[in-house]
Amino acid sequence: MGRIITLLTDFGTADGYAGAVKGVIKRTAPQAELIDISHDVQPFRPETAAFALLNYYDQFPVGTIHLAVVDPGVGSPRLPLLIITENYFFIGPDNGLFGFVLKREDYRAYEILPGQLPGSAKSSTFHARDIFAPAAALLAKGTDTGNFCRPLDRGAQPCANGLNRRANRLEAAILCIDHFGNVITGLHRDDTIIKKDEKISRIGLKDFECNQICQYYAQKKTGQLLALWNSAGFLEIAAASGRAADLLDVDPQRDKVVLTVESKNK
Amino acid sequence: MGRIITLLTDFGTADGYAGAVKGVIKRTAPQAELIDISHDVQPFRPETAAFALLNYYDQFPVGTIHLAVVDPGVGSPRLPLLIITENYFFIGPDNGLFGFVLKREDYRAYEILPGQLPGSAKSSTFHARDIFAPAAALLAKGTDTGNFCRPLDRGAQPCANGLNRRANRLEAAILCIDHFGNVITGLHRDDTIIKKDEKISRIGLKDFECNQICQYYAQKKTGQLLALWNSAGFLEIAAASGRAADLLDVDPQRDKVVLTVESKNK
Amino acid sequence: MGRIITLLTDFGTADGYAGAVKGVIKRTAPQAELIDISHDVQPFRPETAAFALLNYYDQFPVGTIHLAVVDPGVGSPRLPLLIITENYFFIGPDNGLFGFVLKREDYRAYEILPGQLPGSAKSSTFHARDIFAPAAALLAKGTDTGNFCRPLDRGAQPCANGLNRRANRLEAAILCIDHFGNVITGLHRDDTIIKKDEKISRIGLKDFECNQICQYYAQKKTGQLLALWNSAGFLEIAAASGRAADLLDVDPQRDKVVLTVESKNK
Repeated sequence: MGRIITLLTDFGTADGYAGAVKGVIKRTAPQAELIDISHDVQPFRPETAAFALLNYYDQFPVGTIHLAVVDPGVGSPRLPLLIITENYFFIGPDNGLFGFVLKREDYRAYEILPGQLPGSAKSSTFHARDIFAPAAALLAKGTDTGNFCRPLDRGAQPCANGLNRRANRLEAAILCIDHFGNVITGLHRDDTIIKKDEKISRIGLKDFECNQICQYYAQKKTGQLLALWNSAGFLEIAAASGRAADLLDVDPQRDKVVLTVESKNK
Repeated sequence: MGRIITLLTDFGTADGYAGAVKGVIKRTAPQAELIDISHDVQPFRPETAAFALLNYYDQFPVGTIHLAVVDPGVGSPRLPLLIITENYFFIGPDNGLFGFVLKREDYRAYEILPGQLPGSAKSSTFHARDIFAPAAALLAKGTDTGNFCRPLDRGAQPCANGLNRRANRLEAAILCIDHFGNVITGLHRDDTIIKKDEKISRIGLKDFECNQICQYYAQKKTGQLLALWNSAGFLEIAAASGRAADLLDVDPQRDKVVLTVESKNK
Repeated sequence: MGRIITLLTDFGTADGYAGAVKGVIKRTAPQAELIDISHDVQPFRPETAAFALLNYYDQFPVGTIHLAVVDPGVGSPRLPLLIITENYFFIGPDNGLFGFVLKREDYRAYEILPGQLPGSAKSSTFHARDIFAPAAALLAKGTDTGNFCRPLDRGAQPCANGLNRRANRLEAAILCIDHFGNVITGLHRDDTIIKKDEKISRIGLKDFECNQICQYYAQKKTGQLLALWNSAGFLEIAAASGRAADLLDVDPQRDKVVLTVESKNK
């Protein structure tokens, strides 16, 4: 069995662009096993893809290569990256896409050298096909990274979590609205922005307010709003069998989830 | 070659939730072959997924494991199921999702025991990742079902076909509107609700009425409406190279297809 | 390892129709490796799929079987085709779907003979499952094409590129609007409709006009319009980090890209 390469892009599928990426990989590394994660990530917003990566990257077998391309700056000087963590490889543009993963992992970062990759025609607009896919395929074949990469003397670009605390008031920007209309923030249950002797006493988003974090959606009746730590560990505002984002008419760019934090001993 | 596991969910792909399910399976059962059916099934409506299952389950090789998760009641007491038929395995929640398949098949039903599955963290909101995927992976590896399941002393939840007959008038609720705008009912050409010596003499849906069942779409001119038995054997109202549901402005929750049935000898 | 079969359809995934196609192939040719290109191609428009095919077909390993089905005439007399080029196999309906590929390749065309295929039930409405998938599976297994095909004494249906030149004015119809809102024409950089001693001096689409062809999107500021040869070699009107089709309110059926061509020596 070959190495697994997962694919996350904002290419859609209908134009055959994602198909071209698959073809390049299979041509160079016929043994590689391709696994689609998504080609429908929100275009032009690497932070949304950064959240998606968190949901799956560490579920895969050790040695998996995660290819992820949401790349509004394609053709500009942003670097093509290879990231190596203890258990995984990540390949994609250096624009914050790997920011959430790398907050959790020790890593080494490398610049991919396009001139060292197979394939002659290099377009300026399709690096997924011409740079990232060939690099993933070489890696899958076991090619030494020294042959097509050089170490970077800095870390990868970070990805902001959108948290802002002043005294007992914690504002959390909206990371994304997921497929179910859940409103997901960048606040993780392990974030140290809330201290161990503190608790959340109030959660609000527009007209919704609550003082309790639920365990699962069906604790509330159909259509009722609730807050919970989702399966990736992030705080979200949801609705039982409904779409919280629609019920509250949420604008993900402007609206904030506002929390009140207080001491447990109080 | 490993066993095939097919995947049908309402998770979308963009958030990485479906990706997490795939990762869990490949980590536990590296030889399993994953085949995406869909992650875009209509959310919160198991009956639509029940119809989709009918279209593909028995096309696959004997021994295929069909994982299907549309699960508005996740976290509530509905049971996680393993169903074994003569040729296939089905894994998913007990909410009617397997109802149409099980009308056609002899089966045994088992409750999956989450405590017997690998993986420590069990969220209350993501049973596909934490319960159904590990169970499918164990099955794919050939683990004895006795190790993680117990027999159920009742059948799985049924799924209503939405048929209602009074004398010669047969009302069929709309099961779903498919990708092509075809309006699909729960009436199967083999249903005994129409007797062998009877025939359908009239079919109506809103402003459309006909007395004939076509063989294929191109029998009519572009945009014309027709009735036919579709490739799964269900009665549908369609339009040649067009979207019947849009042309008739169909409300799938309220509108009904109305048939007149009469004796062949009449 | 088995042969690769790629899948391009307009079936969507939610109804399980694409899943049925996959099941049929795996049942007949268990070793075949299925690779999804897309099931979201624009329904009823083979020319859009013809463009998508160009983007991926020749990226795949030699011997790949490309299954492509956008088939508004299913059930009518249009023939089911097998096309063999130097490096690839193509299977699908004879409606222009392979037109762009075949302008670039020498080929032999065959009619697939449904009566020679495995599987008894042949519906009139689902040839992808009942004819094209079984044919692809037989091919993947190495079955001699003489067993289920016969040579065609004519070529496959062409696909119009929508170009129309009068003197120095070249009108290009819109082939499709891609996932990123790029407006793609049928003008390829190698088309001989523009002579070697000529150059494009002006490009216009509705309110947009320019006299330069860019190298990559990020050459312009966010939201600015530009023209470029895309990664498949076709002329497109795009917007940096934006959707050109929306900015210009493009009607793909009616609007044209208009070019002025002049002699390089002028």
